[in-house]
Amino acid sequence: MVTSKIPHATAKRLPIYYRYLHFLADAGKKRVSSTELADAVKVDSATIRRDFSYFGALGKRGYGYDVENLLAFFKKTLNQDQLTNVALIGVGNLGHALLNYNFHQSNNVRISAAFDINQDITGTIQSSVPVYDMSDMKEQLTVQQIEIVILTVPSTVAQAVTDELVAVGIKGILNFTPLRITVPSTVRVQNVDLTNELQTLIYFLNKFGVEDEQTLD
Amino acid sequence: MVTSKIPHATAKRLPIYYRYLHFLADAGKKRVSSTELADAVKVDSATIRRDFSYFGALGKRGYGYDVENLLAFFKKTLNQDQLTNVALIGVGNLGHALLNYNFHQSNNVRISAAFDINQDITGTIQSSVPVYDMSDMKEQLTVQQIEIVILTVPSTVAQAVTDELVAVGIKGILNFTPLRITVPSTVRVQNVDLTNELQTLIYFLNKFGVEDEQTLD
Repeated sequence: MVTSKIPHATAKRLPIYYRYLHFLADAGKKRVSSTELADAVKVDSATIRRDFSYFGALGKRGYGYDVENLLAFFKKTLNQDQLTNVALIGVGNLGHALLNYNFHQSNNVRISAAFDINQDITGTIQSSVPVYDMSDMKEQLTVQQIEIVILTVPSTVAQAVTDELVAVGIKGILNFTPLRITVPSTVRVQNVDLTNELQTLIYFLNKFGVEDEQTLD
Repeated sequence: MVTSKIPHATAKRLPIYYRYLHFLADAGKKRVSSTELADAVKVDSATIRRDFSYFGALGKRGYGYDVENLLAFFKKTLNQDQLTNVALIGVGNLGHALLNYNFHQSNNVRISAAFDINQDITGTIQSSVPVYDMSDMKEQLTVQQIEIVILTVPSTVAQAVTDELVAVGIKGILNFTPLRITVPSTVRVQNVDLTNELQTLIYFLNKFGVEDEQTLD
């Protein structure tokens, strides 16, 4: 179905499109134009049409896109038709918030295991998720066949924990630590650096004011 | 000093460079090559040289960059030589985690006020930050001259709260809600969508495996 490589920026927008299409379908809407979509998701309509064209999803002039078709297509593309279990490594303040974070109802991602060294919480269930001791991490990740983890440990241990995760065969890491972790090329890392996001916002405000470009991130 | 427009991707990397240079300076290192930097921050050295060239910061062949000069330069560029006060709007799970989140010691950003409707916490100090009732938001933001906020309210009220923020003259919003908020062109929004980050990671793993491109985000 998807045969060619698509840009990273396009891939990042797919979940946004998906969520809005889900909303439209729930509201009983049958079709949507790229202009309507653009207005709702704050991405210009030319970008939307280009993004969709990577997947061969082409709207008809004067009709737009069929909501159900597009939704079914995105559901499959984004693996929303299957449940992905992920593990949370590190249950501090941010980790706790992520356990409680509602990764949107329309989304088939679930945190199915959490790990920490704090004996006050290991062996307990937090927000419906069992918290294991770090010493059980390798075994549990293997048994539960988890390939994706959310990393929210202190920076000081981030690389050591990453090395353990790599050793057990983890394929993807959503890295919330400020450390740029080192992994082999077989592992994908997505960095979420909250300080960075805030500094970038401040930087742009101070240096350039507000620009149109903001819809393109 | 900065005269031309720089790419968004470059701006997002500046805080990463800054943090590592800070680390090098603390360690007493006098100079650094783009290759060393590349290895530490996981950005290829050609990209680093191009990024730096936007600012006229040019290394010398066989010498590299002077750490102190570069650090002083980034400090100024990123407004690290002045304190930026921001407000947190919404003190739920994620908001609480952000209050506790250490926006890195090397960083002069501070959450100086928080707002919520929960009367159990309004009027209290949480993690050294006063929590005000939402009804005091406009007044406090004005008095404290805060221009940047972190938005962590429920999606259902995100647009209404945004409208209030815009009315009081807020210039930048770090939006943690899944809603794509509507603002006038005078306000800059930076979206941090955690579900989106996770879905993008899963998407890339399932469709393409791991790619070099990951360093370019």
